[in-house]
Amino acid sequence: MNEDMNGEIEMSERVNHQWRLDARPVGRLKESDYKFVEEPLTELPDEQVRVKVSYLSIDPANRGWVNEGGSYMAEIPLGGVMPAMGIGVVDESLNPSFKKGDMVSGILGWQEYVVSDGKGLQKLPQLGLEPTAILGLLGHIGFTAYFGLLDIGQPKEGETLVVSAAAGAVGSLVGQIGKIKGCRVVGIAGTDEKCEWITKELGFDEAINYKSGSILENLKKACPKGIDIYFENVGGDILEAVLALVNNHARIPLCGLISQYNATKAVPGPKNFINLLVRRVRLEGFIVVDYLPRAMEAAADLLKWHAEGKLKYRVDIVEGLKEAPNAVNKLFDGLNQGKLILKVG
Amino acid sequence: MNEDMNGEIEMSERVNHQWRLDARPVGRLKESDYKFVEEPLTELPDEQVRVKVSYLSIDPANRGWVNEGGSYMAEIPLGGVMPAMGIGVVDESLNPSFKKGDMVSGILGWQEYVVSDGKGLQKLPQLGLEPTAILGLLGHIGFTAYFGLLDIGQPKEGETLVVSAAAGAVGSLVGQIGKIKGCRVVGIAGTDEKCEWITKELGFDEAINYKSGSILENLKKACPKGIDIYFENVGGDILEAVLALVNNHARIPLCGLISQYNATKAVPGPKNFINLLVRRVRLEGFIVVDYLPRAMEAAADLLKWHAEGKLKYRVDIVEGLKEAPNAVNKLFDGLNQGKLILKVG
Repeated sequence: MNEDMNGEIEMSERVNHQWRLDARPVGRLKESDYKFVEEPLTELPDEQVRVKVSYLSIDPANRGWVNEGGSYMAEIPLGGVMPAMGIGVVDESLNPSFKKGDMVSGILGWQEYVVSDGKGLQKLPQLGLEPTAILGLLGHIGFTAYFGLLDIGQPKEGETLVVSAAAGAVGSLVGQIGKIKGCRVVGIAGTDEKCEWITKELGFDEAINYKSGSILENLKKACPKGIDIYFENVGGDILEAVLALVNNHARIPLCGLISQYNATKAVPGPKNFINLLVRRVRLEGFIVVDYLPRAMEAAADLLKWHAEGKLKYRVDIVEGLKEAPNAVNKLFDGLNQGKLILKVG
Repeated sequence: MNEDMNGEIEMSERVNHQWRLDARPVGRLKESDYKFVEEPLTELPDEQVRVKVSYLSIDPANRGWVNEGGSYMAEIPLGGVMPAMGIGVVDESLNPSFKKGDMVSGILGWQEYVVSDGKGLQKLPQLGLEPTAILGLLGHIGFTAYFGLLDIGQPKEGETLVVSAAAGAVGSLVGQIGKIKGCRVVGIAGTDEKCEWITKELGFDEAINYKSGSILENLKKACPKGIDIYFENVGGDILEAVLALVNNHARIPLCGLISQYNATKAVPGPKNFINLLVRRVRLEGFIVVDYLPRAMEAAADLLKWHAEGKLKYRVDIVEGLKEAPNAVNKLFDGLNQGKLILKVG
């Protein structure tokens, strides 16, 4: 091993590992839809910055991104590195806006190193929190919960808020913000352990394990005054049960439909779609990137509530870049609690 | 025949004809779901007013009203008179707010005379328009078009607006208001004659006969810049085609789902429901009664646009109270053009 004068390994011997898309996935992601490749690090071009990836965010939306047509993101070409939100440390910079050691976030991708012109990178402030707070409390997760609930859901004191995937990264924040705003909050999750976490630790009023008993009957009991806001993460039978119980003028922030991301044919909307009309419901799809210009507004509140002990988050860490495809499936199997994060290297 | 001093027929000999609900309809309305009854007019109680019904509004929503549970209106009990919006003339009044000869509107029902405490009646101003303008241009039809498009649709100049049931009472107004607001307006209707009417007479930019060719392909051609607003009256395949073509941040005022009002089992939502999420669409059901406090705002604009020749309406009149159930089916068969009205007596 050769070392240069600064004690670093020479560029030509350093390598980058990446997951590149190798086949258009059908149904669940498979490792074989990707290729795990090794490439030498090349010399950094002028004005560019090289980031060493520390943590990657594993999100249900990742599944949609690899579809033909690419959902709301541009289609990922076969051979392209799988994109993912993440945080990392500047390893080398020829860009005056960044210096070695800066911590940054952005769409870094399933890889150990990423070279960027800096435009998609945000320098992270010193918050006195663990670095993963950017993925579990602030950043795209926190902003999704914040703007989806407050802007679209418009919670009012005393209203009933139902949240699905309530022990997930976004859902667990949504329920707590609902409590801060004075709502009765009912969470829906898939295990008794998750239900216990969201009620005992996070302060939800009620939790329903959708795998146990009739979701419609259990929702009816938990929502004696009907449902005013439904923060939708899942779709399917749960949406249908909620639509049977929504009050007039209910709001449904449509954040995700995880029950159908792996579907191999089109999934119809709820059978009681007509209730959207009869009950005058507002259902609105949203993607957090549209709210980024207002990020500081959300960050200020989220940090304040966290400091006051009213807004907790939990990270669920998977170790090793090689686990990336499996980690996505962990979400679809409901095996995560809180924010699923991949620790790279 | 006895006549009193004023030359009127005595009360005991005057009769009222009514359509009363006799069976809970399944699928299409049938005459046999109702009973056509004759009753003597009884003496008017104190503080009450008797209205002689002139015209009744025949609306797709009438079909939903007779369902068990009653959609957004209270359930109509078996034996009850079928409700309907209408206009009439005060025939006799023991209520100081009304005098004989006043023209009024309200939910009068399928009958020749209605007795009311006056609370649900609006006295109609002298507008210099034919009386049916209250049913075809103003009142619930005009307000539905106005608030649905402007409040929920939020049209901006240069945007593409698609309207279904475009030759119907509401749809024909929506398209013209869209033109007033500077939109490219595409109407969907079920005959070439209707298509010609909305383009040549009402000024829609394009019209599509959904019974001829592929609705998706025809919409694609008519909306080269995608769809920003879809005023939804019908549901089914047309909604699905629109959702394939909506732009990001499209708005869908959900006014009606006429394709499914006669359905005998639950009709699922569109197969591409997920596009509401990916394209960040706002879909909002509404019922005009919620906007009545703002009626004057709408009336002022609608009258002004009509006087300027920018907003035309057409009434399609069926004669005779006995035709009421058949008239409702005329809507479902797409046989009306403009506002369907029943002339009573």
